[in-house]
Amino acid sequence: MSYELYYWPTIQGRGEFVRLALEEAAAPYVDVARMPAPDGGVPAMMALLDGDSVPHPPFAPPFLKSGRLLIGQTAAILAYLGERHGLAPKSEAGRLWVHQIQLTVADLVTEAHDTHHPIASSLYYEDQKKEAARRAEGFRNVRAEKFLGWFETILERNGSGTGAGTWLAGRSLSYADLSVFQVVEGLRFAFPKTMMRLERKLPRLVALHDRVAARPRIKAYLTSERRLPFNQMGIFRHYPELDP
Amino acid sequence: MSYELYYWPTIQGRGEFVRLALEEAAAPYVDVARMPAPDGGVPAMMALLDGDSVPHPPFAPPFLKSGRLLIGQTAAILAYLGERHGLAPKSEAGRLWVHQIQLTVADLVTEAHDTHHPIASSLYYEDQKKEAARRAEGFRNVRAEKFLGWFETILERNGSGTGAGTWLAGRSLSYADLSVFQVVEGLRFAFPKTMMRLERKLPRLVALHDRVAARPRIKAYLTSERRLPFNQMGIFRHYPELDP
Repeated sequence: MSYELYYWPTIQGRGEFVRLALEEAAAPYVDVARMPAPDGGVPAMMALLDGDSVPHPPFAPPFLKSGRLLIGQTAAILAYLGERHGLAPKSEAGRLWVHQIQLTVADLVTEAHDTHHPIASSLYYEDQKKEAARRAEGFRNVRAEKFLGWFETILERNGSGTGAGTWLAGRSLSYADLSVFQVVEGLRFAFPKTMMRLERKLPRLVALHDRVAARPRIKAYLTSERRLPFNQMGIFRHYPELDP
Repeated sequence: MSYELYYWPTIQGRGEFVRLALEEAAAPYVDVARMPAPDGGVPAMMALLDGDSVPHPPFAPPFLKSGRLLIGQTAAILAYLGERHGLAPKSEAGRLWVHQIQLTVADLVTEAHDTHHPIASSLYYEDQKKEAARRAEGFRNVRAEKFLGWFETILERNGSGTGAGTWLAGRSLSYADLSVFQVVEGLRFAFPKTMMRLERKLPRLVALHDRVAARPRIKAYLTSERRLPFNQMGIFRHYPELDP
């Protein structure tokens, strides 16, 4: 039985964190809103978001259908998939730690989004450019380094033996590693100059990014048509004036 | 053995969601940063945040120490406490649903915070008043209603039998109910006029708030010195110009 992923069909966005986990797990899934109508397309997604008889309606995409289960919120979806597909530690302590990393990724993603939409998601970037310039400044100079530096620190502290710094948590790849890979990808697209400066002090994070990119299934996915390109509609957008 | 909660000592903030769960569970805990030095106070909290040898350092407060476990991120702490103290359903599907509600609360809390700090948390409100006025407008007119309306909807859909609308999920109180209570409290403090208008269409949510407030342990907590008052340093702040 296939999973059904529901997300906006034209952007990586938050859906991409789920796609990466499904791809690494080689789990069969349908990216519903990218399929043709009537079974697919955005209307099929809206039917579950706005339908009158959905018992547990998600607040927003992405959400995942797994049999009768409908799960919203990226981090909750990943916790579910992680447990089922060996993308999270088996121990309670390990699962909580990976989840904690993921929730911190989620905070970073929101802040990255708000650099170009500090006033309202319902307005165009052009209607909040001045405010975006101010918000992006704080992101470039304070927040990005704080978040990425935290990933570097936990890589450094993850075991002092031979496996030190290989993965963010424990001795195996987890969904958090995939998500942090995606954050680096997104920030490189949106803030190339800032990242060039920051990455000098983040050797373990850069190595983690490269290690994830080289995973056979991730590598195949990234060069497939299933991987949407970054663009100016998603969470990570490149406005040169926000990365001077 | 007592839990140790670490959070800023002068605000409710995100720590309050954890405090409410601990209080409802009658779980013994120490609110470390509110205790006297040298064992307590903010330095004791910073030692775990910035210490060189903490294997799993949290990114930010709140965090909870439970024996050897150190758990950061409000939603992760609540998932942990929920399972241990009967504040979450036993089934996987139930636990995921409650967690999904909590993650949506977290998104709302971030947006409520950003009404007064849309540019940077490191700046004063006075340095971003103009931007705050714009951001708060969208929050009042679009976002608050969308979030609170979603809670109303899921209350309505939670079972069609006698228990309909009693709690957000399942047949018993969960940590999500406590958190949604706190969100209503916070929004009433910050946006009294907006809430007066919105609550007319949210009878189930208001009833849920009152039902939580009447729980014996919550009632005792709210009138105790352990409950900090809302103020102008926390996440929910009352600036009359943001709620005209």
